[in-house]
Amino acid sequence: MICLYPGSFDPVTNGHMDIILRASALFDEVIVAVMVNANKHGTFSIAQRVEMLKTACSGISNVRVIEFAGLTAELARKMDARVLIRGVRGASDVENEMMMARANRVLMPQLETLLLPASPEHETISSSLVREIAGFGGDISAFVPECVLKDIRKGYNKSGN
Amino acid sequence: MICLYPGSFDPVTNGHMDIILRASALFDEVIVAVMVNANKHGTFSIAQRVEMLKTACSGISNVRVIEFAGLTAELARKMDARVLIRGVRGASDVENEMMMARANRVLMPQLETLLLPASPEHETISSSLVREIAGFGGDISAFVPECVLKDIRKGYNKSGN
Amino acid sequence: MICLYPGSFDPVTNGHMDIILRASALFDEVIVAVMVNANKHGTFSIAQRVEMLKTACSGISNVRVIEFAGLTAELARKMDARVLIRGVRGASDVENEMMMARANRVLMPQLETLLLPASPEHETISSSLVREIAGFGGDISAFVPECVLKDIRKGYNKSGN
Amino acid sequence: MICLYPGSFDPVTNGHMDIILRASALFDEVIVAVMVNANKHGTFSIAQRVEMLKTACSGISNVRVIEFAGLTAELARKMDARVLIRGVRGASDVENEMMMARANRVLMPQLETLLLPASPEHETISSSLVREIAGFGGDISAFVPECVLKDIRKGYNKSGN
Amino acid sequence: MICLYPGSFDPVTNGHMDIILRASALFDEVIVAVMVNANKHGTFSIAQRVEMLKTACSGISNVRVIEFAGLTAELARKMDARVLIRGVRGASDVENEMMMARANRVLMPQLETLLLPASPEHETISSSLVREIAGFGGDISAFVPECVLKDIRKGYNKSGN
Amino acid sequence: MICLYPGSFDPVTNGHMDIILRASALFDEVIVAVMVNANKHGTFSIAQRVEMLKTACSGISNVRVIEFAGLTAELARKMDARVLIRGVRGASDVENEMMMARANRVLMPQLETLLLPASPEHETISSSLVREIAGFGGDISAFVPECVLKDIRKGYNKSGN
Repeated sequence: MICLYPGSFDPVTNGHMDIILRASALFDEVIVAVMVNANKHGTFSIAQRVEMLKTACSGISNVRVIEFAGLTAELARKMDARVLIRGVRGASDVENEMMMARANRVLMPQLETLLLPASPEHETISSSLVREIAGFGGDISAFVPECVLKDIRKGYNKSGN
Repeated sequence: MICLYPGSFDPVTNGHMDIILRASALFDEVIVAVMVNANKHGTFSIAQRVEMLKTACSGISNVRVIEFAGLTAELARKMDARVLIRGVRGASDVENEMMMARANRVLMPQLETLLLPASPEHETISSSLVREIAGFGGDISAFVPECVLKDIRKGYNKSGN
Repeated sequence: MICLYPGSFDPVTNGHMDIILRASALFDEVIVAVMVNANKHGTFSIAQRVEMLKTACSGISNVRVIEFAGLTAELARKMDARVLIRGVRGASDVENEMMMARANRVLMPQLETLLLPASPEHETISSSLVREIAGFGGDISAFVPECVLKDIRKGYNKSGN
Repeated sequence: MICLYPGSFDPVTNGHMDIILRASALFDEVIVAVMVNANKHGTFSIAQRVEMLKTACSGISNVRVIEFAGLTAELARKMDARVLIRGVRGASDVENEMMMARANRVLMPQLETLLLPASPEHETISSSLVREIAGFGGDISAFVPECVLKDIRKGYNKSGN
Repeated sequence: MICLYPGSFDPVTNGHMDIILRASALFDEVIVAVMVNANKHGTFSIAQRVEMLKTACSGISNVRVIEFAGLTAELARKMDARVLIRGVRGASDVENEMMMARANRVLMPQLETLLLPASPEHETISSSLVREIAGFGGDISAFVPECVLKDIRKGYNKSGN
Repeated sequence: MICLYPGSFDPVTNGHMDIILRASALFDEVIVAVMVNANKHGTFSIAQRVEMLKTACSGISNVRVIEFAGLTAELARKMDARVLIRGVRGASDVENEMMMARANRVLMPQLETLLLPASPEHETISSSLVREIAGFGGDISAFVPECVLKDIRKGYNKSGN
């Protein structure tokens, strides 16, 4: 069974990697999709996000990283994915995810969204937190995969952001 | 009794229509007010939103559609509305609405906010979801009134959004 | 329009009175119904709860207090009530109320549940809190109508509860 | 992959059946386990609950119904189940489920809990609601599988509950 | 400043110890109070709970363990405690605690409730979870202080619970 | 003990003042820090916000107002603050604060975040609400300290916002 894990991954965090690893143990293939959102520019370019994810996932054989501009349900259909996976860190996360899950089932009735509770040690991690800490030159090494640490820091030095 | 239903309606959805219909059965008159927010531009112009709402509500005799730039409490006073109605889809919706309701009672003590639980089949619908799906050329026919479907699609083709 | 306000009222609190008063200003008649629950015995008898509510509501002309053993939807049908009102104090209250509201619409489709946000000063009040404080001989005068204060205290002295 | 669906099922509802059906399409085998709780007696006996579930699931080939007195993690290990599935209807459901999921991962680290958002039309259904309606002789046909309707009603007539 | 930490502690968990330790570093004295609730019998006797807490806290010099039958606000007044501390594990915990905090401020206006977010590794722990696992003979060593492990297990063997 | 109260204070509200006053009674010194966020411009300048806070806090001897561009944990270390205080108005507030609290403990393990439930009468107040009301020329006198009322109104007249 193919499992789709869509997100913005701006940038990838240890929280994302936790979900990817756990999903890769449950499903035949995990497709990690960086979703292009025309209205939100993000801190890292789509290409950078894909590149960092590919580096971070290089050791997991059944994970593929792609980018996609379109609706999640459309991508699931194209990829023949029956399952969409999303990590949840708390009650407010969940409510958004439940709304998205129901909307996706209207658009593609056989698509199931499975919510995976974040591991406690990754519960505090979000891409926006990483961006905030990195933006002030703080230490993000507890929050992101080691192999992309340099790339993230570089992004902040370059942009002066 | 006059009931005020304020919102941004960018664009009107079946979820909004569900609330309007149910409110129109409970109160003498329902005033649907497109609130102008100087800081948020929106996808559709205020005039377009009012027009679509008028089309969608044309069959309900005790509904009036207006636009207003100002505070909700001020509009309620002007319209002699004792009741403000808001649809709620879940716990996080409700918390925002309760804060607004209390603020409005400080500004106009006799104004009551009544929260109407969304019908289950409309629970997943929000204007932002409709915009996202329409923005990618997806099928929004399950989410908006049929009579404004063409108008919404046109908006997306024109703006290339 | 007739409005039904069902509950256990064990005992009536200032929070309940706030909802009753506000509802009585919005609807032609408010029927306050002490619902009999065969599985929960309660601290006060059904008769005592009805009596205290009648005392507390005696000054509001369009309020009627009754008791009922059965389903809320059944009572609404019998009383010709189109509207069911419930006070909500926060997000967790609301989720329960939304589930009940939807179940009631399945049982009686034209019955609308309106959720009324508690006034801030009554937000902390619940019957169980009153019972807990009164049970330890604490001062409940800030939480219940003055006219039933003696009755509640008597209940605790008698039962030694 | 074997998927475990534990619960009290007192009695089985259409909400449970929705989860079972959807899980049966995602996993090789779904084990539905009626968990024995020494402290809660329940309305239906464990044997009755298992019987009703077996009747309701008889048409789904890869579903097995069992009873178990012990910890969920222990049962998962015994059954070689890597996945535990739970339906969620809203934010408060989810918080409990997240706590249980984390506790189960401490007891059995490779056990993953997947949360499946309830279908909107089943969101209002809970066993306790069914018990409440049935207890007052109300119509539960919209909430439980048709094939167990008679069994549930019988239970209420017998016990006079 | 004296800090009061009230609870039922049935039995003490690592989550409680985390709060006690952190509070003991912030305040001059921490009074841990096992609150007697006439309506809930509990699994361990009040004396056993106090005993286990005393064992677990024996290494922290500024912590005192007591039992109390009465209202929290009354105990705070008697102990001259200005601060009440409570651990919170998630949104639903918090709502209950906020209601209690406000009620306590009505009963004793100068009493401040401070909510301390549980450490992630203790977030899943509750006394009821410990009771459930121990009740089925499961391994609770990850959830309770080592020094009371034997006492808790003994309790379950004795009572056959 | 030094207590840090970080925020954007755009502008200061009675809700903020409630937290500051209560914290000043619990801790030796309260440092109120206007945090500079490079990505959010705000309605009032950092200097204006600091000025208004200084005016509003002028009567509380152990409160100091500063501005800071950097991470909260970094500021706490620099100021030798062991405690960070944050007001919470409801469940959704709390979830964000818990995430921030955990992140801050990763960055500075000995930093404790204490959540202080908002007083009921200040629960509805937020800076964004004040900005919205003031932006439409509404009456904000119930929401902000009297001594800064003129400054806030001036800000809106000048900018024509």
